Amino acid sequence: MRIEEARSYVVEKLKYALNPRSIAVVGASRYPAKVGNKVVYELQKWGYKGTIYPVNPRAETVLGLKAYHTLRDIEGEVDLVFVAVPAHLVFSIVRDAVHIKAKVLVVATSAFKEIGRGDLQNEITSYCRKHELPLIGPNLVGLGSPYEHFNCGFIPYLPVPGPVAMISQSGANLLAALGTSQEDHLGMSFFVGLGNKADVDFSEFVEYAEKDPHTKCLAIYIEGLDSPEAFVKACRKASKPIVVIKVGGSAIGAKAAFAHTASENPEADTYYDDIIKEAGAIRAGTWQEFLDVSLALGLEPPLRGDNVVLITNGGGAGLLSCDHFERLGMPLSELKDISPLLAQKIRAYMPMFGSPLNPVDISGTASVIQYRGAFQQALRDPKVDGLLGAICPTAVTDVLGVARAAAEVRAATKGLNKPFLMICQGGAECREAIRYLRDHGIAAYPTAEQAVNAMVALRKASSD
Amino acid sequence: MRIEEARSYVVEKLKYALNPRSIAVVGASRYPAKVGNKVVYELQKWGYKGTIYPVNPRAETVLGLKAYHTLRDIEGEVDLVFVAVPAHLVFSIVRDAVHIKAKVLVVATSAFKEIGRGDLQNEITSYCRKHELPLIGPNLVGLGSPYEHFNCGFIPYLPVPGPVAMISQSGANLLAALGTSQEDHLGMSFFVGLGNKADVDFSEFVEYAEKDPHTKCLAIYIEGLDSPEAFVKACRKASKPIVVIKVGGSAIGAKAAFAHTASENPEADTYYDDIIKEAGAIRAGTWQEFLDVSLALGLEPPLRGDNVVLITNGGGAGLLSCDHFERLGMPLSELKDISPLLAQKIRAYMPMFGSPLNPVDISGTASVIQYRGAFQQALRDPKVDGLLGAICPTAVTDVLGVARAAAEVRAATKGLNKPFLMICQGGAECREAIRYLRDHGIAAYPTAEQAVNAMVALRKASSD
Repeated sequence: MRIEEARSYVVEKLKYALNPRSIAVVGASRYPAKVGNKVVYELQKWGYKGTIYPVNPRAETVLGLKAYHTLRDIEGEVDLVFVAVPAHLVFSIVRDAVHIKAKVLVVATSAFKEIGRGDLQNEITSYCRKHELPLIGPNLVGLGSPYEHFNCGFIPYLPVPGPVAMISQSGANLLAALGTSQEDHLGMSFFVGLGNKADVDFSEFVEYAEKDPHTKCLAIYIEGLDSPEAFVKACRKASKPIVVIKVGGSAIGAKAAFAHTASENPEADTYYDDIIKEAGAIRAGTWQEFLDVSLALGLEPPLRGDNVVLITNGGGAGLLSCDHFERLGMPLSELKDISPLLAQKIRAYMPMFGSPLNPVDISGTASVIQYRGAFQQALRDPKVDGLLGAICPTAVTDVLGVARAAAEVRAATKGLNKPFLMICQGGAECREAIRYLRDHGIAAYPTAEQAVNAMVALRKASSD
Repeated sequence: MRIEEARSYVVEKLKYALNPRSIAVVGASRYPAKVGNKVVYELQKWGYKGTIYPVNPRAETVLGLKAYHTLRDIEGEVDLVFVAVPAHLVFSIVRDAVHIKAKVLVVATSAFKEIGRGDLQNEITSYCRKHELPLIGPNLVGLGSPYEHFNCGFIPYLPVPGPVAMISQSGANLLAALGTSQEDHLGMSFFVGLGNKADVDFSEFVEYAEKDPHTKCLAIYIEGLDSPEAFVKACRKASKPIVVIKVGGSAIGAKAAFAHTASENPEADTYYDDIIKEAGAIRAGTWQEFLDVSLALGLEPPLRGDNVVLITNGGGAGLLSCDHFERLGMPLSELKDISPLLAQKIRAYMPMFGSPLNPVDISGTASVIQYRGAFQQALRDPKVDGLLGAICPTAVTDVLGVARAAAEVRAATKGLNKPFLMICQGGAECREAIRYLRDHGIAAYPTAEQAVNAMVALRKASSD
């Protein structure tokens, strides 16, 4: 339901959604195959430190915890009420949640507006608003934070801790992002599925994320925007960079978005181009770009000029990159035009058949020492705004050694506040190097074009 | 150097390049850090079955093998001469190779035309042509075939066996592809780096690949095309699908392509659009798309109509997909318009809050049985031309179970000759499922848009 702007009582209470002292799980089943059981299981498994109150009218215990027949039977204070019961039972649970003065309500239950039960959804939402009980959902997968060891929902894993706040209407895509986070070390500060976003809206999570100390960047997946003015206003107020992916732009996608999260898309897709631009956010085109740009915005400073130097041991990665830079409207300049001095100096770090053009090809035989020297020279040159390094594993490349050298150079040049991204195209050792680099604060990618997308986004983040 | 068309003596002798009975490695060093040592080491490590003759004027043995001071000292027949000595020594090696009647020559050495020594390169090439000794290279990383356990070059790994012939001018990008192959099970029939392609040209490998029984699809990475007519002619003759990535289209990229592999790009990039179209090949825009489309063309039949059904347990993956289908000019139709009967039948495999639209959302609670049923119904419906399945790992999803079911359905419906692609968005279990699916002949991808790119390419492959 529409809001004029982010409501302060909601923003204030979202801390209970992401860092609750106690949680009541309504619909907590005794049977492991049931989703209501999974919620309690995952809370326990990932080390939630607060109190869990399973609520189940027919159980005495759930997963070793004392169960309560109703919310009203709980003696202690309840910060968060998580609801996983069939749709027709939800309103009575909501009334109980208001009665026990819960701080925030998360409704996972599906089968509301997305299947034509908009009236019931609106009724519940209005009731929550009247009682100033923020409702997240319904029809969502969950939420959590790796910093709090807090995994609340039907979610098989926590992401690795890091800078990106992931705010997603889609549960499945949120889960995909969390899986990617674990596997490829895309660090997150917190994550939330908004589902039908009947009550709590994007704008309120944007304001919350702005205050969250772990969050350096916001990644927002949108299927429909009920309150575009509130969204734009909250984003414009935010100092942190924001990347948005908006789906449902295709004719059939608009229908699917309604069937999925009851999202309405009466406007053409270009309308969202304008909204996102007005919000000062960056729009990603594909899911991969969404993740890649989020990572860069979370880890790297903005790129303050167009002078990017590309240092590679493989000409191919360099070519893919420079073509893609030009495709995105930010062509590379030749090194001699960026810095004649650097073009000379960098010769010391390559064999005679290397190329100091830009891409700077230090050749397939490049050693860790040559890489380190070239990286240092490039980053320290005052004419250089940003550095893109590429590692291609030849039979003589010490991939992890180069990654370590990159991390050292990054640590030593942190004060220069320049983006330093890496490409690492290849197999298992590249995947390992990417994780290592990301763990050490360098946005690293498995293909050239992904890194270039990220670098261009960092330029946009500077000009906004 | 330019050729009018693929030369039959070259095509004929390429079998000695990819399946040689004996190899002389000239420049085989005793020192493990040297590239000339790596070549012998990798041949041994990956189980090359033929005879290896290390050639080194100062060594008696290399890695346990008897070394020869010159090529002329070798008593046995030599199919392939691999050259890894400095550029100024290459011509005399080439003369020796002709003298001993070697079948094919692979020159890894750099520092020819790409640094201004075009004259020397041309002189050597003319000499080879006069003596009908095919020269692959110079300035390349190597070549090989997983089916032959044959890894010949500065290459840290063999790919997994499979349908894609990878023909790449760039060594680094070839290595990246091989690494990806091992890690993500992109199966290859053979691979070759062409480097400066002074003599042997793309067209000749195209003709060779056409005859190779393991090859189902050709993936060609081009930095420059000296003989476009020969290329077009060979591709048009080929019955196997071909995907091409052509780099060097940007202003700085054209210079970098010359510095890298002495590739000349006097024409605008659109010229290559035309050439590739005329060749009946599919042009990929990014490296990832190049790999993804290759995999699909290698594993899947062409898509003979536009009726693609998308079955997913996550609405988000469905939305990303259908938006991308529309972006690529091949929008999905609603299921009721494709097949009213299927739209009814498929209801049996989803809960009441699922959606039979298209994407067909069988919901986050979907079981292996529901997936199997939905996949079967969709593939068997005569109105359906192709199927795209998506697995999003919720807390109750048996990801590998669904992958197994998909492989079973695929095996049972092979005769229908319809593409069946999968999306598996998420973490470690998705990566494992993707490998499993690929190993079982299903083109599976970690993001929705990658799978859609591949499906659209399969449609193009049908209309060509």
